[in-house]
Amino acid sequence: MASFPRPVARLIDQLERLPGVGPKSAQRLALWLLREPPERVLALSESLSDAVEQVHVCPRCGYFAEGEACALCDDTRRDESLVCVVADARDLLAIESTDGFGGRYHVLGGVISPADGVGPDDLNVASLLARVEAGDADEVILALNPTPEGDTTANYLARVLRQAAQRRGAAVRLTRPALGLPVGGDLNYADRTTIERAMEGRREI
Amino acid sequence: MASFPRPVARLIDQLERLPGVGPKSAQRLALWLLREPPERVLALSESLSDAVEQVHVCPRCGYFAEGEACALCDDTRRDESLVCVVADARDLLAIESTDGFGGRYHVLGGVISPADGVGPDDLNVASLLARVEAGDADEVILALNPTPEGDTTANYLARVLRQAAQRRGAAVRLTRPALGLPVGGDLNYADRTTIERAMEGRREI
Repeated sequence: MASFPRPVARLIDQLERLPGVGPKSAQRLALWLLREPPERVLALSESLSDAVEQVHVCPRCGYFAEGEACALCDDTRRDESLVCVVADARDLLAIESTDGFGGRYHVLGGVISPADGVGPDDLNVASLLARVEAGDADEVILALNPTPEGDTTANYLARVLRQAAQRRGAAVRLTRPALGLPVGGDLNYADRTTIERAMEGRREI
Repeated sequence: MASFPRPVARLIDQLERLPGVGPKSAQRLALWLLREPPERVLALSESLSDAVEQVHVCPRCGYFAEGEACALCDDTRRDESLVCVVADARDLLAIESTDGFGGRYHVLGGVISPADGVGPDDLNVASLLARVEAGDADEVILALNPTPEGDTTANYLARVLRQAAQRRGAAVRLTRPALGLPVGGDLNYADRTTIERAMEGRREI
């Protein structure tokens, strides 16, 4: 009985480790790659090794850094007194894309999720507490998704951040982004909880 | 406005070229990879470059080869007079897994599909015709899926293979795997066309 040549089998095996890729899709992907021009596959191979060799996690904020600290921590024009906590780098870039936030960031690397086996110790919480304890953050924005996991994480962080601020001997303002109707949204199609939150959070015009 | 460090952006760009991977899933995949232990990402990188550097398409049958010809073409115990045509390497391995076929293979590298812009010239048809014209194949099994594309491809190949056999001055038997109820299947749940084909193809017991 024939089987795949060893380098093909190894490639399938490696592709299967990717999230959301099962045995069948790993095979399909490997066969697709082996039909591509070799230089394109080598470009992918190189970009993988370059990324892990040239990029590391910023020890201060948890974002990606090429140098010692990341470009955001190195940027002295950013407001040190305002720290925005996000679950991952994509959320950071989503906020950056608005051009409306000039403070610092802290990337947790996920959210607390017992179902996925992720607890506070698996996240960059210690470095956040150290920043708040040592630094001069007046406000920490907990910009986590309004989901059960995001809410749990925000509540946990609120508790430990208050304790950290106490140790510093100063108060810290803790906030979360507003909940309400999305711009361009339709009351008729919004879910009940969103409408409730939008009504609660109503503002003078 | 911040953006991903260049090596991360390049990796996302490369991942986006994979089939079925859009911009959002390329970002998710890249972030997942950058949280993995570097040695695991390097192993994936290496398996990609190894596969394209060590494996090529067998010039004779279109399967994967590490040496000059593939292990199947090199195997002299296999019956030269029987050639089984398959769409891709996975179909070849599916047939091999039965241990019931001792002939040769020919891997087309796809099927004719005008919707995907795949015509006969994009498939390994010329080498198949050359094999039939030069060799001593008595029977060619067109083991293509019983789908519109597979049927079109089989009908096309039947026509050009007959012409090739004529040029050789000999007849070639052209067959396709039987259509019918899958083993363990249920008449009650089979589709009409499958039942029709099963009735047409009924055999003495």
